[in-house]
Order: sequence, then structure tokens, then C-alpha cells
Amino acid sequence: MEESPKFHPIGVVHSPYKCLSEAPYQGSGGDVSEIEIFSEYDRGLKDVEGFSHLIVLYWFHQSKGYSNLVNTPWDTVPHGVFATRSPRRPNPIGFSVVELLERKENLLYVKGLDAIEKTPVLDIKPYILRDVKEGICLGWLKGKGHQR
Amino acid sequence: MEESPKFHPIGVVHSPYKCLSEAPYQGSGGDVSEIEIFSEYDRGLKDVEGFSHLIVLYWFHQSKGYSNLVNTPWDTVPHGVFATRSPRRPNPIGFSVVELLERKENLLYVKGLDAIEKTPVLDIKPYILRDVKEGICLGWLKGKGHQR
Repeated sequence: MEESPKFHPIGVVHSPYKCLSEAPYQGSGGDVSEIEIFSEYDRGLKDVEGFSHLIVLYWFHQSKGYSNLVNTPWDTVPHGVFATRSPRRPNPIGFSVVELLERKENLLYVKGLDAIEKTPVLDIKPYILRDVKEGICLGWLKGKGHQR
Repeated sequence: MEESPKFHPIGVVHSPYKCLSEAPYQGSGGDVSEIEIFSEYDRGLKDVEGFSHLIVLYWFHQSKGYSNLVNTPWDTVPHGVFATRSPRRPNPIGFSVVELLERKENLLYVKGLDAIEKTPVLDIKPYILRDVKEGICLGWLKGKGHQR
């Protein structure tokens, strides 16, 4: 199979979390981050302010290596990396749905981004109705997931 | 800024959509696709079957180049690429939330994946409660988005 291309950052995160130890495990709650989009791409933000929520894809740039089996803070047994949100992944791409508070030219002020300071941003997409799923079931043991 | 690494596919999509012209614009509805995870990574799937929905990140491998402004089938004026889900993006990474129907060893049978045949898969993540947002607002003109 053809290899995928090298991806290039389109911007960078300015975060209240200055290092990994400050970053929340899952969900940054109410903290506000700034996403700076580089000038080469800022015209690509046209009309983004019409969306209340955005998908942010970023590079876990401080993540080193990965394991197929991962120990998490949530359980005593290891789980497959693709059943976790661990940053130590074969392709260390981070994903957050953030609330867009404001856009000022090439700067996006967002809530809910758990990326640390200087995280390279790979993509921004509008979060749309088809991304909202209801009646999801989650859990690490088949049949024992809890329904919401 | 340090460049991001070259990402490597962890698997490949087998889709009812054999070419771009067959792929739905947004949302594949009820069609079932198969995701084949390569043997190097299949242990990373442990316990993934506990989740009803998965996030799939993939490479739009047939996408060539990008424009900051994009014409879509949904409007007569161009919009910024980051306000659209166009596959022609600075970093052509695709995103779908899919329903996991069944796992058979290294094969995942999913509903809702609008990637075409042979699309390289970059990552699989569990779709969790924090990814579900309510009261989202969408639209290309500020203040004219419709609330759901």
C-alpha cells in the first residue's frame, strides 16, 4: 500500500496547560484555549464562526512510541489502544470537539481542548449533526457497557 | 516548528463505494463497510467491541491539493475549507463516527463510513460521551445558523 503523506501543521495551540502533567485526562472542562491558524491557511477559516462546535485534529507531539495494549487510569486491566483515547498511538493524532467562543481573524478561542501548549494543529472541521450519536454504549467488556 | 511525522496506515477500508463518484456527499446512511486492521496492530483492538460507536480517522488518499476557499454542493458562494467537510484539505484526514456492528478478529463491520474502497485507515478511537454535543448551531453565516 502507498504510504500516507507527511502532514504539516496548519496552526498551533496556546493552552492554559503548559505541560503534560497539567493536562486533564479526558475533557478540559471550562478552560479556554486559543488556536492560532498560520497565515498561509487563514482564509480557510471563512464562515467558520457559523458553527457552535468544531472538530480539532492535532498531533500529540510529545507522545513517544505506542503499545497495542494500554493501561489506563480507569481500569486495572490493559485494553487495546484503539479502545482507549491514549495519546500513545500508532498514529498520534488527537481529536477534540470544542465549543467555538469567538474568532478574531486567525485566532479561534475555544472551550474543551485538552491539548497542551504548542500542540501542532492538523485540521479544523465543522461539527455537524451526523457527528451527534444517540443511545451510545460504552464499556470495555462486551455486554457490560453502560447505555446512555 | 518541528514537522509532524509521516503517518502510516494501520488498516484499510473495504467499502461498497468503489470510486469517488459512488461515495455519498455526507453520510453513508445504512451501508456496511469492513475495516481491516493490519496484523501488526490487531491486538490494539482488544475490548473495542464494548463500544457501540467508533471514531475512524483515515487518509483521503485520492484527494489532490486543496484550496482555502471551497465551493460545495450546498451553497452558491464559496466557504473556507475549515468550515466544510471537503476532502480537499491542507491535511487530507477524513473523520467519521461509525456504528460498530460486529468485530471478527481483525475485521470491523461498521455502518456510516463514507470512505471509498482501499482508503487507508490512520486511527480508531472509541466514541465517548464527551464527543456528544447538544444544542449545536450550524450555518455559514453568523447568526443565521440553525439551532438543533
